[in-house]
Amino acid sequence: MTAPRAAIVGTGLIGASIGLALRAHGWHVTGTDADEARAKEALAHGALDEVGVDPVADVTFVATPVSSVATLAREALARGGGVVTDVGSVKGPIVAAVGSPRFIGGHPMAGSEQDGLDGAHATLFAGATWVLTPTEATDAEAYALVRSVVATLGAEVVAIAPDRHDALVALVSHVPHLVAATLMGLAADGAEEHAQLLRLAAGGFRDMTRIAAGHPGIWPDICAENRAAIVAALDTLLAALSGMRGVVDAGDRSGLLTSLEAARAARSNLPTAVAHPEDLTEVRVPVADRPGVLAEVTTLAGELSVNIVDLEIAHSAEGERGVLVLVVDTGDAERLRLALLDRGYRPSTRGLA
Amino acid sequence: MTAPRAAIVGTGLIGASIGLALRAHGWHVTGTDADEARAKEALAHGALDEVGVDPVADVTFVATPVSSVATLAREALARGGGVVTDVGSVKGPIVAAVGSPRFIGGHPMAGSEQDGLDGAHATLFAGATWVLTPTEATDAEAYALVRSVVATLGAEVVAIAPDRHDALVALVSHVPHLVAATLMGLAADGAEEHAQLLRLAAGGFRDMTRIAAGHPGIWPDICAENRAAIVAALDTLLAALSGMRGVVDAGDRSGLLTSLEAARAARSNLPTAVAHPEDLTEVRVPVADRPGVLAEVTTLAGELSVNIVDLEIAHSAEGERGVLVLVVDTGDAERLRLALLDRGYRPSTRGLA
Repeated sequence: MTAPRAAIVGTGLIGASIGLALRAHGWHVTGTDADEARAKEALAHGALDEVGVDPVADVTFVATPVSSVATLAREALARGGGVVTDVGSVKGPIVAAVGSPRFIGGHPMAGSEQDGLDGAHATLFAGATWVLTPTEATDAEAYALVRSVVATLGAEVVAIAPDRHDALVALVSHVPHLVAATLMGLAADGAEEHAQLLRLAAGGFRDMTRIAAGHPGIWPDICAENRAAIVAALDTLLAALSGMRGVVDAGDRSGLLTSLEAARAARSNLPTAVAHPEDLTEVRVPVADRPGVLAEVTTLAGELSVNIVDLEIAHSAEGERGVLVLVVDTGDAERLRLALLDRGYRPSTRGLA
Repeated sequence: MTAPRAAIVGTGLIGASIGLALRAHGWHVTGTDADEARAKEALAHGALDEVGVDPVADVTFVATPVSSVATLAREALARGGGVVTDVGSVKGPIVAAVGSPRFIGGHPMAGSEQDGLDGAHATLFAGATWVLTPTEATDAEAYALVRSVVATLGAEVVAIAPDRHDALVALVSHVPHLVAATLMGLAADGAEEHAQLLRLAAGGFRDMTRIAAGHPGIWPDICAENRAAIVAALDTLLAALSGMRGVVDAGDRSGLLTSLEAARAARSNLPTAVAHPEDLTEVRVPVADRPGVLAEVTTLAGELSVNIVDLEIAHSAEGERGVLVLVVDTGDAERLRLALLDRGYRPSTRGLA
C-alpha cells in the first residue's frame, strides 16, 4: 500500500506543522518555500520527506501570505490532478481568483506569535477550529478529501461560505486589531506629556490593547485582501459607537444598561476553546498583586492532582488586583475550592456550560 | 500620644480596605454605611474601631458610589474641621460640586471584581497608583495630610488636575469598556444564526472583550458623572476610526503600517504595575493549548527558586495556541530559560525596562 502524498507550498509555522502532523500519520510530504533555506530547515526539522514539488500529490497545502496564495494555488492545480487548499485568513477573493472545483479555501484558527519554524509542532491544530469554504462549484470528492485530511490533523472542521467567513473574521479579528491599535494610539497621544499617567491604564486597558503589541507586518496584506469586509465591519462599528455616544450624551441609563447587559451575556456565552464545557468548572480566586500567589495556587492544584485545563488572570476594569480564573474538571472543582478556602483564599465557582 | 483619627463613609471593598490598612498603622477608625448591616460587618471584619460618625476625625474618606459623593463629602465637611477626600472614579464634577479648600478629590487605581467586603484587605493599595486632584483653591496643609495618609496605605500618589484625570480615564477606562461591549454585541449579532461560528473569535477577541463580562451596574453612574469627558473621548475615537477606515479603503499600506507600528511601540512602553521594571525580564514561552503546561512551567520555576513576579497568557491574534509570558527577576531569567530549553520549550527573553 502506497503512502498518501501531500505537498506543502510555504514551510513557515503553519506549513511545517501540517508537514509534521501528516508525516506522523504516515503521509509522504514534499515541500517548497520561496526561501530555499527555510525549506531545507523544514526538512531538517522533520516536517518534510523531501524538498521539491510533487506533481502526483493527492493534496497540496498552500501556506503562504494571502497575497501570493491564488497564484501558487493555480500553479499547483496546473501541475497535476490533485486537490489544492490553503490556510489564508481571507477567503472570498482567493476562492474567486482560483476558481477551480479542485480548490477548497481553508483557514485554520491556529497559529502563534512566532511566524517561523520555531513554533511548528505536529499538534498545532489539535482541537482547533479549521474553516473550509466550499462553494456550489466545488467538487464533492475534493471537498471530502480535504475535510478528512484536516480531521487527521486533529482539527474540527466548520464549513462556511467564503464571503460569510470574511465578514465574520473582519468583525472578530481584523477590526478588533485595528480598534486596539487606534485606542492605544489615542491613549499614547493623550498622555504624551506625562508618560507615567498611562499608569491610569489598568488591567482592562492592557487586555484590550494586547493584540496591538503584535507584529504589524501581516496587516497590510490582510487589509488589502479583505478590504471590502473590513470597511463594511468598520462602518457597522462606527454606527454602533455613534449610537453608544448618543446613549451616554442623552443620559439614557436604561438604554446603557440594556446594551451592557446584552454584551455581558454574549461574552459569557462566547464558546471556549475546550471541547466539552459541560464537564468543566471555573474557579475564580481574587488575588493580590504579589509574587508567589500564582505558584502557590498552581502548586496546591498539583498536590491535589487537580488538572488545570485553562488559566487566565482577569484584571478588574480599574486597579491592579486580579482574579485568577482556573478552569478545572467539574469533579475536581469542589475539592480545589475547599483547599483554597483553607489557605485563606476566597474562591467562587461556576459551571462553564 | 493620641492616635490619629479617620472616618470612613461607605464600608464596601475600598472603604473597608482603607479601614483595615489605617488600623494596622495605629489609626482610630470610625465608619458608617447607608446599609447599617454592612457597617456592622466591617466592624466584625476588623475594618473599624466603632460604627458611627466622628466629628473630630482628622481625615474622612467618602467611599461611596460617585453619584452620592458630593453630598456626603459636604456633610462630612460640615461636621468638623478635618480634611475630606473620596475614592470616586470621576473627579471634575465632584470637586466642583464640593468646592471646599478642605476637600481633595482622590481615585485609587485598585479594586476587585468583588464589590463587597469579601475582597477587602489591608494591602489592597500596596503599590497601586492613587490619583489626587488638588486645585488652586486647595488648602496646602489639607493636601499634604491626605497625601501622607495615602502614602501610609502603600499607594503611589500622582497629582493631576480634576478635568485632566477625567479625560484620561475616559480614554483608558470608560471608553474602552463601552467599545468592548459594542464589539461583543456586534459579534453576537453577526453570528446569531450560527452561534458556534463565534469560535472564529480567537484569543485576541477574547482579550479585547474580557472587560465586557463585568457587572454593568456601575456604568450608568460613571457615564452620567463623566458624561462630558466620555462623549469627547468617543468623538476622538470615532474620528480616529474613520481615519483608519479611510486608510484601509484607500489601500494605503504605508499609512496602515505607520499607525500599527506607532501603536505597537506605545503598547510596548505601557508602564507596568511593577515598581522597578529595570530589574525584571520577560520570559516568553510558546505553549500548546494542552493541560499541564502551566503547572509544568510554574513548578519548574519553583524548583529553581525562580520567583514569578507576573504571568500572562498572550493569545495570538488568531488561534488557540498561546505564549506564556513570565516576568521574573533579571538575575533568574537565564537560569529559567536554560531549564525550559532543556525540557523542550523554546523560550525567548527580553528586558522590561
